[in-house]
Amino acid sequence: MDKARADSPLRLAAVDLGSNSFHLLVVEVHDDRFVELEKCSRKVQLAAGLDDDGHLDDKATTRALKCLDTFGNLLAENRVDRLRVVGTNALRTATNSVDFQRRAEHSLGQRIEIISGREEARLIYQGASREWHDNPEHCLVVDIGGGSTELIVGSATRPLALESLDMGCVAYTRRFFPDDRLGEAPMDRAQRSALLELATITTPYRQLGWQRAMGSSGTIKAAAAVIHALHPHIDKGVITRAGLFELRRRLTAFERLDQVSMNGLKSNRARVFPAGIAILCAVFEAFGIERMYHTDGALRDGVLLDLLERDTGRDVRYTTLTDLQKRLRVDTDQATRVTDTCLQLFDRMAESWQLDEDGRELIEQAALLHEIGLGVSHSRFQHHGAYLLANADMPGFSLPDQWALAWLVQAHRRDLPSALPDHRAALEADQLMKMARLLRLAVVFHRRRDGAAATLPAISADGDRLVLDFKRPPDQLLADDLVQEQAWQQRSGLALALRWP
Amino acid sequence: MDKARADSPLRLAAVDLGSNSFHLLVVEVHDDRFVELEKCSRKVQLAAGLDDDGHLDDKATTRALKCLDTFGNLLAENRVDRLRVVGTNALRTATNSVDFQRRAEHSLGQRIEIISGREEARLIYQGASREWHDNPEHCLVVDIGGGSTELIVGSATRPLALESLDMGCVAYTRRFFPDDRLGEAPMDRAQRSALLELATITTPYRQLGWQRAMGSSGTIKAAAAVIHALHPHIDKGVITRAGLFELRRRLTAFERLDQVSMNGLKSNRARVFPAGIAILCAVFEAFGIERMYHTDGALRDGVLLDLLERDTGRDVRYTTLTDLQKRLRVDTDQATRVTDTCLQLFDRMAESWQLDEDGRELIEQAALLHEIGLGVSHSRFQHHGAYLLANADMPGFSLPDQWALAWLVQAHRRDLPSALPDHRAALEADQLMKMARLLRLAVVFHRRRDGAAATLPAISADGDRLVLDFKRPPDQLLADDLVQEQAWQQRSGLALALRWP
Repeated sequence: MDKARADSPLRLAAVDLGSNSFHLLVVEVHDDRFVELEKCSRKVQLAAGLDDDGHLDDKATTRALKCLDTFGNLLAENRVDRLRVVGTNALRTATNSVDFQRRAEHSLGQRIEIISGREEARLIYQGASREWHDNPEHCLVVDIGGGSTELIVGSATRPLALESLDMGCVAYTRRFFPDDRLGEAPMDRAQRSALLELATITTPYRQLGWQRAMGSSGTIKAAAAVIHALHPHIDKGVITRAGLFELRRRLTAFERLDQVSMNGLKSNRARVFPAGIAILCAVFEAFGIERMYHTDGALRDGVLLDLLERDTGRDVRYTTLTDLQKRLRVDTDQATRVTDTCLQLFDRMAESWQLDEDGRELIEQAALLHEIGLGVSHSRFQHHGAYLLANADMPGFSLPDQWALAWLVQAHRRDLPSALPDHRAALEADQLMKMARLLRLAVVFHRRRDGAAATLPAISADGDRLVLDFKRPPDQLLADDLVQEQAWQQRSGLALALRWP
Repeated sequence: MDKARADSPLRLAAVDLGSNSFHLLVVEVHDDRFVELEKCSRKVQLAAGLDDDGHLDDKATTRALKCLDTFGNLLAENRVDRLRVVGTNALRTATNSVDFQRRAEHSLGQRIEIISGREEARLIYQGASREWHDNPEHCLVVDIGGGSTELIVGSATRPLALESLDMGCVAYTRRFFPDDRLGEAPMDRAQRSALLELATITTPYRQLGWQRAMGSSGTIKAAAAVIHALHPHIDKGVITRAGLFELRRRLTAFERLDQVSMNGLKSNRARVFPAGIAILCAVFEAFGIERMYHTDGALRDGVLLDLLERDTGRDVRYTTLTDLQKRLRVDTDQATRVTDTCLQLFDRMAESWQLDEDGRELIEQAALLHEIGLGVSHSRFQHHGAYLLANADMPGFSLPDQWALAWLVQAHRRDLPSALPDHRAALEADQLMKMARLLRLAVVFHRRRDGAAATLPAISADGDRLVLDFKRPPDQLLADDLVQEQAWQQRSGLALALRWP
C-alpha cells in the first residue's frame, strides 16, 4: 500500500464478469468490515452469445464492452487501492476469449483474471459465509450462475467440499429451450439433466451433511421473491420446497419463454428463469432440501475478502503453496535456498529490467514450486511441474497466475520453451522470460543441494544481455554449469556474459 | 501357469535390449532360486546408430534384428512359462522406435516393453541386491550402460534413492570422441560433463550413505579385469581408486580410440571403454569412492525376479497402485466397487470379445486408478489421470503398460479419445477400445457413489454392437445416464443397445 495513503481507509474493488451478469463492487475497509461505496450490476448475458462451437458472438461482445466502459468510469471515479477483475464460466469456455479479453481489458483499463470453477466455488463460499463466521453449523451453499452452478458444503468459513458443475440458467436456456417453447416436457428434460450432473456429488455431500441450505445468485433471489409475492406469510428470502414446486407448476403453464411474467420477477430475468428453476428443483430433489435461505454474499464479496487477506498476511495462496509442496514431497530446504537466491537476483535486476511487485510475488511462488514435478517423475520434471500448475486446483490463484507459474516452472531448466505464454498469463511474456533467466541462475547456484549459501556475482544487464561478474573464479563445477547455462540461453538467442579474473 | 505343467519347474526368460548390448537369460526356478539354462549376450551397440536427431540408422537396426533372430530361436528351443523383453535408453530416445519395435517384435516373435530410466534403475538394483538380501548394510549400485547410467542407494533389497542419468559409454563416445581422438582433453571434458550430471544427486546420495559400492555393467566388469591384470594382488572384481586412476592415465596415453588395447579388455569393448572410464572416474570423484565391487547381477536378473514375484503374489505393481491411490487421495471404496463391476462385465464378455488375461489385469488396474486425476483437479480429471499414468514413476510397470492404462483412464468418461493408443501400448487398440466401453459402463452403474451393489443387466455383443438386457426397467437416473452413455458411444460410431420391458 502506498505510504502516503496509509492513514486513509483501504479501498478495494471487485469486478465479476459472470456468464449472466457483470457486477462491480467498491468498498472501504473499516476495522475489517466492508462499507459499500459503489455497487453496479448489468445483465450482460455473455453466455447467451456463445454459439455451439463456443464462439462468443459480436452482439454479446458489444453488450459486454459497453458495460465495461461504464465500470471503467466508475473505477476511475472511486480511487481504489486494490482491484481484482475475475471472469467465470463463459470466459473459461469461450474459444475466442483471448480476443475478447484484449478488448475488454482495453475498455476497462484493467487486467482480467479468468478463474477456475472450483476457485469460483471457493470465493462464493467465502463471500456467502462471511456473515456466519462464528457459526459452527455445516452449511450448503448453492449458486446457480449463467454458465455453471457452484455447490459447497462448509463449516463456518472453511469449505469442506467444493464443486462447479457445467450447468447454468443461460446455458440451459439455450440447450433445453432452443425454440423458446416452455411447458412440462422441456422443464422435465432440463431438470433430469441437472439431476444427472448432480449424481456424482449427491452421496458425498449428503454424507458431510448440513444444518442450513443457503443460495446466492439471481435465480435464487428471484425464486424467493416470487414465492414471497405468492405467499406473503413465507419470510422474505426463503424458498420452501412446496413454494418452489408450486412456482415450477406455474412456470410450465406458460407456453413460451417470452410469456413468462410473475409478481416479484424482474422482466430481464424472465427468459432464463425457467432453466434456473429446473436446476434449482434438481438441487432440492438431489439433496432432499426443505428450505433454502437466500444470501446476498456472492463471488464479488469473496474476491474482496481475498484482497483484504492478501493485505493482512493471511494470504490463502501461501497455504496453497505449502500444501502443494507437501503433497508433491518437495525438498523444501532446497526450494527455500533457491527462492532466497532468486529474490536476491530479482531485487538486483528489478530496476534495470523494470520488474515490478507482481513479478516478485510470482517469481517467489515459482521458485518455491520449481521442483514440484519431481513428485511425478524425475525425467522431464519441469514439464510435469508445469502440467500440474496449469491444471491443479489452487485456491487463491487465478488461471492467468497458474499459467504464468506453469510457464516459469517449465522454463527453469533445459530448453527455454519456444512458445511464449499467451496474452492471458498474469505477466507479459517479456517479463516472464527475464524472470525465467533469473530463476535458472538461482537453480545453477544451488545445483549441489548441499545447503551452502551461494556467493553471488555482481549481476547487471545491457538490454537483454545479462552479465555476471565474479570477483574470484568460481569452482570448476559451477563454472562448467554456467557455461552450459550460457549455451542454453544462447540457443534462444539470449546472451549471458560470464566474467571472472 | 498351464496346469499340465504345474509339476515341472517354472521356466522364466528375460531379454534386455540395452543401448550397448542385448542379453538373453533363461532360468528354471528351484525353491525360489534361479538355475541358468541359457545365457547369451551380443554387443549390438544400438546407441551408436542414433544420429543427432535421435534417428536409429539401418546398420544398427540390421545388427539388432540379426541378434533378435538368434534370440527368437533360443526362446523357441527353451520352452518358457513367462517371458519379458525390455528395451532401455536407446529405445526410449530413438525417434523412430515404433518402426524398429514393429520389426524387432516380428524377428523375436514377442512383444517388447520399453521401460523408464527409473524402472530400469529399480530392476538393476533388484538384480544386483538379490545376493545380499539379508544384509542390512546400505549399498550404492552403479550401472554404466550404453545410453544411461543408473545409480541406486538401497538397504537390503529396498531401494532408497533411484536415478537414471543421461550419460552412457556409447552416447559419450559419440559426444566427446567424435573424431576417434583420445588423450587428456576429451577425457577431461567427458568426465566433467559426467560430474555435472551427477551434481544434483551427489549430496542427497551421500546423506543416505552406504557401506559398500557395487557396480554392474560391462564397463565396470572390464575396468576390474584390466586392474586385476595390471595388479594381480588386487582381488578379482575389485576397482580401487588408485587402480582406476592409473587405468585412466594409461588410456589417455593412446592417441586414438582404435589403438586402445589392454590386458583384460575384450577388443569389442575397447572403443567405448574410455568414455565408460570417464563416467566411472566422475562417479568415484563425486561420491568419494575408494573401492567398488563388481556384481554380475543386472537388469535381466531384476526382470526375472519381477516375473517370479508376479507369480507368487508379491507383485510390486499392486504396491505401486496402492501408493498412487493414497498419494492422489483416491476414494478407494468407490474404486473397488467400480473395479468389481468392471471385472464382472469383463468376464461376461471375455469369450465373445476374445479378451485375455493380460487385458483383465490391465482393466483391473485402470479401474482401481480411474479417478486418480481428481487429485489434481475435478475439471477434465480423466485427462489429468491419463497424464499422471503416462508420466509417473510406476515401479513394476513398463511404459507400454503405462500408456495403455493412461489411454483407458482418459477414455473412461465424456468423449472417447479420437486418437487410438499407438502400437507400442501394452494391448491392441481394438482390445483397449472394448475395455474402455466396459469400464465406462461400470462407472455409470456406480454413478451415485452410494455404496449400493449394482444390479447388472445381461450383457452380450454382436460384433462391436454391445447389448444390455434389463429384466426390469432401471430407475430414471440410471436410465438417463445410460441413454447419455449411448450418445457418447454413438459419437464414436459404436452402438450400445439398451433393452428393458
